[in-house]
Amino acid sequence: MTTVEQAAYIIQNQIRDYGTETVPFDRSAGRVLAEDIYADRDMPPFNRVTMDGIAISYSAFADGLRSFHVSGIQAAGDKPLHITDTSHCIEIMTGAVLPDTLDTVIRYEDVLITGSDAEIIIDTVKQGQNIHAKGRDKRYGDVVVTSGQLITPAIISVIASVGKTQVLVKKQPRVVIIPSGDELVDVHETPAPYQIRKSNNHTINAVLQQHGCAADMVHIADDEAVTRTEITRCLKSYDVILLSGGVSMGKFDYIPQALQQVGVAKLFYKVQQRPGKPFWFGVNDQGVLVFAFPGNPVATFMCLHRYFLPWLNATVGLDKKNEMYAALSEDFYFEPDLQYFLQVKTTLTADARLIASPLMGNGSGDFANLADTDAFLELPADRSEFEAGEVFRLWPFK
Amino acid sequence: MTTVEQAAYIIQNQIRDYGTETVPFDRSAGRVLAEDIYADRDMPPFNRVTMDGIAISYSAFADGLRSFHVSGIQAAGDKPLHITDTSHCIEIMTGAVLPDTLDTVIRYEDVLITGSDAEIIIDTVKQGQNIHAKGRDKRYGDVVVTSGQLITPAIISVIASVGKTQVLVKKQPRVVIIPSGDELVDVHETPAPYQIRKSNNHTINAVLQQHGCAADMVHIADDEAVTRTEITRCLKSYDVILLSGGVSMGKFDYIPQALQQVGVAKLFYKVQQRPGKPFWFGVNDQGVLVFAFPGNPVATFMCLHRYFLPWLNATVGLDKKNEMYAALSEDFYFEPDLQYFLQVKTTLTADARLIASPLMGNGSGDFANLADTDAFLELPADRSEFEAGEVFRLWPFK
Repeated sequence: MTTVEQAAYIIQNQIRDYGTETVPFDRSAGRVLAEDIYADRDMPPFNRVTMDGIAISYSAFADGLRSFHVSGIQAAGDKPLHITDTSHCIEIMTGAVLPDTLDTVIRYEDVLITGSDAEIIIDTVKQGQNIHAKGRDKRYGDVVVTSGQLITPAIISVIASVGKTQVLVKKQPRVVIIPSGDELVDVHETPAPYQIRKSNNHTINAVLQQHGCAADMVHIADDEAVTRTEITRCLKSYDVILLSGGVSMGKFDYIPQALQQVGVAKLFYKVQQRPGKPFWFGVNDQGVLVFAFPGNPVATFMCLHRYFLPWLNATVGLDKKNEMYAALSEDFYFEPDLQYFLQVKTTLTADARLIASPLMGNGSGDFANLADTDAFLELPADRSEFEAGEVFRLWPFK
Repeated sequence: MTTVEQAAYIIQNQIRDYGTETVPFDRSAGRVLAEDIYADRDMPPFNRVTMDGIAISYSAFADGLRSFHVSGIQAAGDKPLHITDTSHCIEIMTGAVLPDTLDTVIRYEDVLITGSDAEIIIDTVKQGQNIHAKGRDKRYGDVVVTSGQLITPAIISVIASVGKTQVLVKKQPRVVIIPSGDELVDVHETPAPYQIRKSNNHTINAVLQQHGCAADMVHIADDEAVTRTEITRCLKSYDVILLSGGVSMGKFDYIPQALQQVGVAKLFYKVQQRPGKPFWFGVNDQGVLVFAFPGNPVATFMCLHRYFLPWLNATVGLDKKNEMYAALSEDFYFEPDLQYFLQVKTTLTADARLIASPLMGNGSGDFANLADTDAFLELPADRSEFEAGEVFRLWPFK
């Protein structure tokens, strides 16, 4: 059987590049930047005053002058005043441009102003103090944000400050979500005693939205011909098909067979894991990928986070995220020769250690349990006993 | 001067309740649930088959019968078959209802089917195996998700499965963002040498969007009368005003004065912290809150995460999040008697410990630096030396 590591490797070999598109900068949060952002002028663009107070020429202070004539006042956004007499000063505000002939700012708290006279009441003044020097952070033409990063609010600020109203971002794949199974009815319907409501498709969609990826939804009834027709249609319109259900050994699980009949080559079927063993993955000759997840909700949810999201991140060119680890809070035993994805609740101790506490559900169909947890802890297949304090790979979700 | 702890305490004393509203369940992710969600029937709603195979009456197996006549086939979503002869079995699929007269499922791998005869080829069969018993997870009427939680994809699944197409969620406050300062021009404009582009408002907006909170934007020029008029208007239309800039000691910083003139009582002004010392906070007699952040981008960003977001979370009734801590990666020295919010990049070690590495910017105006970090580490004001390995409070952002 395919191991978890092999399955992840096969999927990561199917990384795609769906190109780029331009979006308004204020709607770019959560997307991946596809161009370097350059400084359109020095940062700061001028010698920027960082304290409200008076600006002087330091040489006069060094020569012993303590009392200066206030010859003007200059706010942030004002054109700089022109001042040549070194016995003069100006009142100046945070964010203002330091005039060329001045080089030092003394804050109001250290000055006594009487009429148009400003007396410096401290002894120690450093030349150039309270000034954020032009170009100190970045020079004109410097790269201020590099391509390939997730656009955060902090990056939006940089993009805004260099005047980029439109930014180039990586395109997301076109994704369709297909739940399968005749036992499924819509959320607004009242199921017969032997039916259940659709939920996997909505869960998948909500997770994709968290990652800035929109998706369509299609439902396929348990009928071979319909399944082939619908999948054929989706293979033409989408880059990725996420199927949920219809991949176990049941007589009415047409999906693996139907996929191969419509030209989707199987790359693996069944993974040495719990939950999610009947996971099927394939590709057609146009490069369209099919992730066919088992229908039980926890298995679908786990496979989405363990396999699909890392693929999505790699596809939009995100630098590989740091792998996450957590320490098991208590001894745990799992006998079968399967990689076990344990549902855990994580906490960060006052000692800054990440602890994963198991919260056992009633098997992979118990989704109510998942709402109380925030991660899967991945326990290796080749062991059965796992000790409190041991560290394992963590797959967080929210 | 107000300490960071005092400021946070004063703000948390201004928690509001803006009521509730109903939203479609598939648009509720990221909102806070304002009602308990009940099971509308048992979970699972029937004795649910968990493996594809045959269903038998265990008593026949216990009596020694190994070969059963296949009298039918039943898929998920089918009405249960009626079978009375204990020497008969049915083929049954994952997700199907177990018929009343049968109690045990043997998976296909352990059965040899020849024509209409199914022979069990294993010796050990447990009564009730491969069945997820009706009501095992939850009983009809049980609370499956409690009020007051952030709605995650996992919770969306539960809401969908109980057929709640509309859910009651907490209302968000109506927020307006007001950057202030004559030196500011719009992002699409080319600033004069003494001007800069607006960015704080876009950053604040992007952070609020991450927390499901929409906001409007207004710009106020540095003019006392205009400031009073605009703030008066906003006090009538919004629950919260987020100001950025205009609160330092500058002669053109009308904001604190203007706020008090239009009836906003000061609760504190100036906090013992860097960055963000000139932070002003107040409330009017209608309960409208004004967070007036200092204009420098890093100060605004820090205050937003340290003060506003915890207030927002408490206001929508989110259970208090666990406080976060990280260990300092190297010795650090900070002399002034101020709480210092150090810009750090966090990493999780293979030992599951969260480490915070300082990334020093060029003071609080250097926003480009912030794009490379992911948290503030809060270093107490009453100390100057901080040692590698020591653990401090962490304020993550993304």
